Amino acid sequence: MIDAPIDHIAIVVADLEAMLALYTQTLGFTEVYREIVADQGVEVIGLRTGDAIIELLRPLDEDSAITKFRGEAPTKLHHTAYRVADITAELARLKALGVRLIDEQPRRGAHGNTIAFLHPSSTGGVLIELCQH
Amino acid sequence: MIDAPIDHIAIVVADLEAMLALYTQTLGFTEVYREIVADQGVEVIGLRTGDAIIELLRPLDEDSAITKFRGEAPTKLHHTAYRVADITAELARLKALGVRLIDEQPRRGAHGNTIAFLHPSSTGGVLIELCQH
Repeated sequence: MIDAPIDHIAIVVADLEAMLALYTQTLGFTEVYREIVADQGVEVIGLRTGDAIIELLRPLDEDSAITKFRGEAPTKLHHTAYRVADITAELARLKALGVRLIDEQPRRGAHGNTIAFLHPSSTGGVLIELCQH
Repeated sequence: MIDAPIDHIAIVVADLEAMLALYTQTLGFTEVYREIVADQGVEVIGLRTGDAIIELLRPLDEDSAITKFRGEAPTKLHHTAYRVADITAELARLKALGVRLIDEQPRRGAHGNTIAFLHPSSTGGVLIELCQH
């Protein structure tokens, strides 16, 4: 993933409307999509700033792993996604280097993107996503 | 901060050399600076990918707030910095909107940048930095 730009940063939030107001009205970002990603158990709002997206994630299930990740914090940085041209090739390259993958095969993410997560055991605990448009 | 690009994402790490190896050798990012930011009590490595920087932060003091922020995790996403053209004007604009600021006046950050942090009580808990080159 040489020179892969940051595609998006995802933040788990408890109060989606309050955070939407903050990021649009106060910070000045632009809402570009809002959808349910059932696969990941979240409602997602994508906000553009510069060439990147801030994704606000509202867990649909109060008992899900992503809700537990947020814990008591009203918001928490969840993952960083890097944009790659060929996600299948990049996953193969990383796997050959010994990186453990959550998604051996790319899958559909928000906004029509193709995504795959690396396993946090191979990234020091921080969740990293690869993303292909 | 209309259309302010992501300038950098900062990650607090326990093992700086291991994370440097991961981000350069495995992920393919490029090390562009390494310095002590005494003001913030951290050693910082800046790694370029695309038009953004991933900053690895190693706390210099085991009792500091940033060490406590990391807690038991080997790494933890710490803050997101957005690049603005006029940080003083942007701080004034946000303050007028009622946003609480950690830094009322911009100060010197890593890599010669001028920075200021918004107070997490005004951002839902996530730490946001403004950054001017």
